[in-house]
Amino acid sequence: MMVATSIMESVVCSCLCVLVFLGCFISSTESKYIKYNTSSNIVAGKLNVHLVAHTHDDVGWLKTVDQYYVGSNNSIQGACVQNVLDSLVPALLADKNRRFIYVEQAFFQRWWREQSEVVQNIVKQLVNSGQLEFINGGMVMHDEATTHYIDMIDQTTLGHHFIKQEFGKTPRIGWQIDPFGHSAVQAYLLSAQVGFDSLFFARIDYQDRAKRKDEKSLEVVWQASKSLGSSEQIFSGAFPKNYEPPANFYYEVNDDSPIVQDDVNLFDYNVPERVNEFVAAAISQANITRTNHIMWTMGTDFKYQYAHTWFRQLDKFIHYVNQDGRVHALYSTPSIYTDAKHAANEAWPIKTEDYFPYADVENGYWTGYFTSRPAIKGYVRFSSGYYLAARQLEYFKGKSALGPKTDSLADALAIAQHHDAVSGTEKQHVANDYAKRLSIGYTEAEKVVAASLSYLTDAPKAGHQIPQVKFQQCPLLNISYCPASETDFSNGKDLVVVVYNPLGWKSREDVIRIPVVSEYVVVRDSSGKQIQSQLLPILDTFIGLRKYYTAAYLGVSSTVKPKYWLAFSATVPPLGFSTYYVSKAKQAATISDTYTPYKSRNQKDTIEVGPGNLKLIYSEKEAKLIEYINSKSKVKESIDQAYKYYSSYGDDGTQTSQPSGAYIFRPNGSSVPIKSDRKSPLTVFRGPIVHEVHQKISSWIYQITRLYKGKEHAEVEFIVGPIPTDDGVGKEIATEITTSVASSKTFYTDSNGRDFIERIRDYRKDWKLQVNQPVAGNYYPINLGIYLKDKSKELSILVDRSVGGSSIKDGQLELMVHRRLLVDDSRGVGEPLNETVCIHDKCAGLTVLGKYYFKIDPVGDGARWRRSFGQEIYSPFLLAFTESEGNWGDSHVTTFSGINPSYSLPDNVAVITLQDLGDGEVLIRLAHLYEVGEDKYLSAKATVELKKVFHNKQVIKISEMSLSANQERAEMERKRLAWKVKGSTQEPHISRGGPVDPQKLVVELAPMEIRTFIISFKH
Amino acid sequence: MMVATSIMESVVCSCLCVLVFLGCFISSTESKYIKYNTSSNIVAGKLNVHLVAHTHDDVGWLKTVDQYYVGSNNSIQGACVQNVLDSLVPALLADKNRRFIYVEQAFFQRWWREQSEVVQNIVKQLVNSGQLEFINGGMVMHDEATTHYIDMIDQTTLGHHFIKQEFGKTPRIGWQIDPFGHSAVQAYLLSAQVGFDSLFFARIDYQDRAKRKDEKSLEVVWQASKSLGSSEQIFSGAFPKNYEPPANFYYEVNDDSPIVQDDVNLFDYNVPERVNEFVAAAISQANITRTNHIMWTMGTDFKYQYAHTWFRQLDKFIHYVNQDGRVHALYSTPSIYTDAKHAANEAWPIKTEDYFPYADVENGYWTGYFTSRPAIKGYVRFSSGYYLAARQLEYFKGKSALGPKTDSLADALAIAQHHDAVSGTEKQHVANDYAKRLSIGYTEAEKVVAASLSYLTDAPKAGHQIPQVKFQQCPLLNISYCPASETDFSNGKDLVVVVYNPLGWKSREDVIRIPVVSEYVVVRDSSGKQIQSQLLPILDTFIGLRKYYTAAYLGVSSTVKPKYWLAFSATVPPLGFSTYYVSKAKQAATISDTYTPYKSRNQKDTIEVGPGNLKLIYSEKEAKLIEYINSKSKVKESIDQAYKYYSSYGDDGTQTSQPSGAYIFRPNGSSVPIKSDRKSPLTVFRGPIVHEVHQKISSWIYQITRLYKGKEHAEVEFIVGPIPTDDGVGKEIATEITTSVASSKTFYTDSNGRDFIERIRDYRKDWKLQVNQPVAGNYYPINLGIYLKDKSKELSILVDRSVGGSSIKDGQLELMVHRRLLVDDSRGVGEPLNETVCIHDKCAGLTVLGKYYFKIDPVGDGARWRRSFGQEIYSPFLLAFTESEGNWGDSHVTTFSGINPSYSLPDNVAVITLQDLGDGEVLIRLAHLYEVGEDKYLSAKATVELKKVFHNKQVIKISEMSLSANQERAEMERKRLAWKVKGSTQEPHISRGGPVDPQKLVVELAPMEIRTFIISFKH
Repeated sequence: MMVATSIMESVVCSCLCVLVFLGCFISSTESKYIKYNTSSNIVAGKLNVHLVAHTHDDVGWLKTVDQYYVGSNNSIQGACVQNVLDSLVPALLADKNRRFIYVEQAFFQRWWREQSEVVQNIVKQLVNSGQLEFINGGMVMHDEATTHYIDMIDQTTLGHHFIKQEFGKTPRIGWQIDPFGHSAVQAYLLSAQVGFDSLFFARIDYQDRAKRKDEKSLEVVWQASKSLGSSEQIFSGAFPKNYEPPANFYYEVNDDSPIVQDDVNLFDYNVPERVNEFVAAAISQANITRTNHIMWTMGTDFKYQYAHTWFRQLDKFIHYVNQDGRVHALYSTPSIYTDAKHAANEAWPIKTEDYFPYADVENGYWTGYFTSRPAIKGYVRFSSGYYLAARQLEYFKGKSALGPKTDSLADALAIAQHHDAVSGTEKQHVANDYAKRLSIGYTEAEKVVAASLSYLTDAPKAGHQIPQVKFQQCPLLNISYCPASETDFSNGKDLVVVVYNPLGWKSREDVIRIPVVSEYVVVRDSSGKQIQSQLLPILDTFIGLRKYYTAAYLGVSSTVKPKYWLAFSATVPPLGFSTYYVSKAKQAATISDTYTPYKSRNQKDTIEVGPGNLKLIYSEKEAKLIEYINSKSKVKESIDQAYKYYSSYGDDGTQTSQPSGAYIFRPNGSSVPIKSDRKSPLTVFRGPIVHEVHQKISSWIYQITRLYKGKEHAEVEFIVGPIPTDDGVGKEIATEITTSVASSKTFYTDSNGRDFIERIRDYRKDWKLQVNQPVAGNYYPINLGIYLKDKSKELSILVDRSVGGSSIKDGQLELMVHRRLLVDDSRGVGEPLNETVCIHDKCAGLTVLGKYYFKIDPVGDGARWRRSFGQEIYSPFLLAFTESEGNWGDSHVTTFSGINPSYSLPDNVAVITLQDLGDGEVLIRLAHLYEVGEDKYLSAKATVELKKVFHNKQVIKISEMSLSANQERAEMERKRLAWKVKGSTQEPHISRGGPVDPQKLVVELAPMEIRTFIISFKH
Repeated sequence: MMVATSIMESVVCSCLCVLVFLGCFISSTESKYIKYNTSSNIVAGKLNVHLVAHTHDDVGWLKTVDQYYVGSNNSIQGACVQNVLDSLVPALLADKNRRFIYVEQAFFQRWWREQSEVVQNIVKQLVNSGQLEFINGGMVMHDEATTHYIDMIDQTTLGHHFIKQEFGKTPRIGWQIDPFGHSAVQAYLLSAQVGFDSLFFARIDYQDRAKRKDEKSLEVVWQASKSLGSSEQIFSGAFPKNYEPPANFYYEVNDDSPIVQDDVNLFDYNVPERVNEFVAAAISQANITRTNHIMWTMGTDFKYQYAHTWFRQLDKFIHYVNQDGRVHALYSTPSIYTDAKHAANEAWPIKTEDYFPYADVENGYWTGYFTSRPAIKGYVRFSSGYYLAARQLEYFKGKSALGPKTDSLADALAIAQHHDAVSGTEKQHVANDYAKRLSIGYTEAEKVVAASLSYLTDAPKAGHQIPQVKFQQCPLLNISYCPASETDFSNGKDLVVVVYNPLGWKSREDVIRIPVVSEYVVVRDSSGKQIQSQLLPILDTFIGLRKYYTAAYLGVSSTVKPKYWLAFSATVPPLGFSTYYVSKAKQAATISDTYTPYKSRNQKDTIEVGPGNLKLIYSEKEAKLIEYINSKSKVKESIDQAYKYYSSYGDDGTQTSQPSGAYIFRPNGSSVPIKSDRKSPLTVFRGPIVHEVHQKISSWIYQITRLYKGKEHAEVEFIVGPIPTDDGVGKEIATEITTSVASSKTFYTDSNGRDFIERIRDYRKDWKLQVNQPVAGNYYPINLGIYLKDKSKELSILVDRSVGGSSIKDGQLELMVHRRLLVDDSRGVGEPLNETVCIHDKCAGLTVLGKYYFKIDPVGDGARWRRSFGQEIYSPFLLAFTESEGNWGDSHVTTFSGINPSYSLPDNVAVITLQDLGDGEVLIRLAHLYEVGEDKYLSAKATVELKKVFHNKQVIKISEMSLSANQERAEMERKRLAWKVKGSTQEPHISRGGPVDPQKLVVELAPMEIRTFIISFKH
């Protein structure tokens, strides 16, 4: 073994010298061969220009991720990541002083797999020596507005894990240089809690940037969490302009910046001119920067395709600038830069909250993308929740070495978090690619789930060698397509519905709806007892949607036409499942009462809807919601719920206008109401489980409002589209709820589904806002919800995917649910955001089906619903179907809980990761769901008893890890740099959970804490 | 020493493996790492697709040579040759089967000098193994229309010498892929006689190409020399389309051809599609090609900036196409391809003469560039003659190790032969760069000449340690600017004029003209004897030209205004000099008689001009030449000489028209005569030495016709410009001579100043010409001259630089002397050919001053004048000036001959190279100037006695070399491939000079033979 190692070492060692073209060997005889002096550490007392050689490789945007990687489809964009990485290696070997950072692991991992062992060993040396540093280190540079924090964590973990595994390294720096605004969660969670020492980005509001340049406060200490305060602060730098080099310092193949021509034997010798330009640019930046250190981002999108072209020039600049001596240039990285900043011992300005919304110019608010491509956004969120559940089930069975895995869904989801993926700012063909990847990943994960359920439902007594049951699932249940349930049960078999609950709380009860073809059905629970069910007609709108979309996407034209939704309430243990049976009945099940008011009825008349405490009152004449009454909470509030649209500004195709587009929301004046279609008044379906109010708002907006027996909120399902554009005007569709809550311009939106941040209309905390866009400039990203309040009530809306939203008037909240635009908004994507769905060559505008939920609570009570129900939206019941001839329960396990049956998680804690790592190791993340002061009771410290969570396993080791699980938390805390802040006032006590006693295995969680553990079990 | 070598070898050896990224090491564990099978020799019985990876690096075009090399000015064109060569080395090392050819040594040499010894050793290995092959191997890919054969030889020699010296290699293949038409001299001289086995090019007439594709005769055996016939034939291939890859097979960084996506784990896998496309393209080419071998030129202008991008795809194509097996792909070179063609033992069609003119489309005759940038063309020719003389003088003194050299002039001249340099098809700033380089080179060579003359004139008896005399020269004598002679001699000093004759013939007598400021001058010869002189007034036209151009180019505004040209006849020995003195005289020298006819004179009256046998008769009324009479040869011919212009077609800037431009001559109909300005009738100056007829043809054309006492031809000096374009129309100016010679559509133009080729108006020998451009399509390049004849007379015109010319009517010859055009002709240069000269910001169209010479001879007598006087035009007397206080002759050598004083070269032989190689070696080239049958007497075999040429040296070794002197001729002849030709008829006996007996040292030269020797002398 030693022999092999030493051969390898010698090969690598000679590589390090021999691959060299510009450095290393100095020929004594050749007069023309110049050895540049690039060995330049930081020099005290001089302005140090940190040259950070980097490439920004979008994981999909104008081209798909694969096209970017291999360099195909270059007619759209010349970009090939393979070139970057291939050419980088010899360029770094050529001079040991050269440095490069690489960011997007989705690309790096592909490349790595294709390399020979020799190259891999060379690269390992380069990483070890610090010449190549992984920065950020997630699979992608995730978006910060339209991503859910669980997805952010997962994709970061995936990237960090690989880096740790292959290189033993933990990235030190956050590098979110391109995303369009920056979130609090990114700062305190995805940066501080993964052990980053700093976070850099480029895009902040142009007014904010101007002020910060003026005040030298582009670089700050960012305390983004109210609950965790300074314990999770991070040094953060916004670049002065963008993430590119100063003008005239671009050196990609064929770039036209002046090269340093230092060969006196050729014409155009320009060393003095170039050094002067370098010094001038450095001093200009130094004038807006604290300390003697500035960073130059020497690269941009997909650059370094032939890395040598950059390094050749950078070598020369370092050599000649340092010869000149006015400023000092060096090969650097963000880590070196951060350490230099830290060593300067400066006190930095404080920044709180976030950097949303982002406007790059007066009318350029990047708030459209909060909603762009709502279907993809919905698919990502659906997949995310499914991935969490699938990993739980995978763990319960034990990870399979050969069988299907959740890895491809993990990859697809990771890639979908890219800031041009879920953001909706990619080209259409690229959006299709992300969807395809999710679908492929989902399909494999579906097999994992099916196999796990097959395993878990297999009764030990049955003694099956390999469980035989094949479970089907219905990902298109949202459009009432579920072949598994669309049977008339004439074969006498039962439909077995296994309902899995990915949440850890005490038994969860929720209404399930599945399409059936006949009213002669009966539902029984796992004990065989018949339970209440309700049939709701599947109306033509749904049937049309189902037909069109299954034809378009599955190529299926089903002859079956389901008649009803069969609704019943399922109760499922924590992290477990229950089983329900649907079978043929002699008698029809309960069909909902239908109530369609006459057109001629008295105009004062109202309809009350709601099987439980919550009643919604509709005006019959106006066919609209007018009042919200909760008999239990005593909330009574007049309410209006409506749709409206914004016309895109300047959709005239002229270059001078700034229209709305994939990125930008730029309405042409105020919104236009969309009136209910009087010819189709509302229809109410009533039954024991759910009441539904159907409203055909217009020919292209259909809405169902549902009130469930046991729930105190309203669920609104909307079907919006195709948005008409025959008038040549792009439109953005919003739904709004208006109450009389006196919200004083103030509302709250979540940060990546986690912290709520106070927003004040037409106001920014960090600078005096000049209001140019009174609507677009008040839009914020919403992943969990939005709410407002006054002294007595709070109105909350929760969403099922990322959308943009705002409160444009006091008491009012609005969500943008769909957008269809006809021109490009000039931010690079080069396509109008005009999504269509085609059957053969016939295309129609995309229809979006989604849900949101609203509730009005007495002030102070809203958080509980937002947090707990929010988690339920993220983790719906997972349904699996099979048929059974005999009595399923006789030979199968019908109820299951993955944790101690007597245990459940506290109401303020969720398991956000439970993943089998193989080799008897499991990764678990526990999240406290409440912020400090958010709820009277639940904002308290919580405890989780791991012994009960892993009730049938013996824990032999528990390690608390950083958020991305790539290092022990203690080690991370020890290494992290502490930063001085300017004029910092005393902070309230910050509560954190204490260390976990490996004997007791009780985890404490303070508000907003997420704790990550790797636990080893005895085999 | 052995140790050092073995270390070096081991370093290089490990390089060969370690630089590898795609090949060499096979990892056994990585499943994704693909080793492509690129080891593919020729396969018999299959169609072999020879993939020739190449780059075409113009030595200046849109950017200067230095800008192309370092990659600056990329906004004009993304191109950096450094990138190509830097990236090539690791790409070749990565797989030993990969091959690349490199052509332009002007770039390669620069790069080579900048490399470390380690890299140089690696490259030497690559060259040795054949992976890197130098093709063509001259400094540049010279133009073939506007170049003189001596320049072609010199620039090729410079490149070949370097390759031989550094790599021990002799290029085997001619690769003239871009020049715009192909010359006979290129084929039989610059290809066959440098030892090439084949010659490839891309640009031939579109009608010719169509026919050749049809007949599979793109590949031929080219016998381009009438005199040397099959002894200097060469296998030649015209590419089917251009020198680029088939459509969709381009792989530069960011190119948009589909890559081979062979990673089944990524989307867009396309191996079968790409293999099918490859096979289809190969079969399509095979259908127009003889044998089972086709060549694909895998590259184009400035490609392989990151060589890896091409090789990555080529590897895959070879791998998958050969797996497929329908055709066989391999890394190849033109050498391998040529050997395969040869091995096929095919008989090839014969091609004679040349491939001029070139048209790429119906109205796209590339005959404009024969004249484009006439000033640069003149400067190149001037420099060429000067370079020949300067090397002679350098040799006579002995090459200086430290002092000035002729090398930079050699480099500048070599670069100027590039097909976008002297051709005039470069951008203006690039033309300026070539001129600047020539000027720098000239200035250094001037120092060599001055030092040599100082050495040679230094009398041995004077005993000077270092000769002190500083000689001045007057390169701007053409515009009457010669500070050395512009003295009033009031200081009593003599002006010493040393007159050097670079020709080897018996004493040469020629008239010298220098500007003087006073008429009180006297001229004496070297013996001190006063000789006849004549003063001619320097008219305002010249003074204006002199003033403007010295201000524009030298920044000089001289207060001196010379009054006269002082003309006197000088007689100089072969390869030697004579000395003349000009000094102040009491009496005025002979001032020419001035004769300006009255306007009112009788219209029939004529003026006879000419001091010798030749008389020109002018009509006074018409102010034009009407008759040519030679009393000795008894030639009497009515004659007309005039100017005319062609308007450029479609100068309206529309895209649909094809206007004239730098490349294209596309007249708008027939020419428009330019009438003499009646207000300025002709003026005649008469004296004993020369008669001059001055004609102001128009406000922008001035002409002087000179008849010298001892000469039987007329010299025409024209000053043309600024060409007026106020009417918005570009114009091309031609001068024409019309006689009654019954030339039957037939005329003769030279090939690169050497062989004359018969041209027949509106006719091509190789195909039935469809005439679309009756003027442009009959233009041919002229470097030496053009003539026509009938049964009794021949009319010859000789030129002082490259021009385009034709015979548009029987008996008529025309030369295009200047062009000024207002729009680009869409062949890439992207600028109109609109040359201007500026003082500060004020610019005027360029004025061109040039000369041509005409003579009418009894049929059969013209060749003698064309050949001998043609050589005199190329090698004019070289004048050097100094002042002397006392009697110069007392302390200086006043006459000198570099050869045995009793010897001179035969009239049919010229020394076209005489160059000191250092270390006692000299390179000499002797050229027989006549073709077979061209002259009754002089088309005979000639002999040169080298003992007399090197009369004071002892020859210890003589080696006859290939034309480019990079190998012994015998070795070259032995290696050259012999080709079978189709239906070859019996050839007349070809005469060649026999071997040189090293004792006798007598060189035989058969018609059109050029023989090259390296001779070693005893120290």
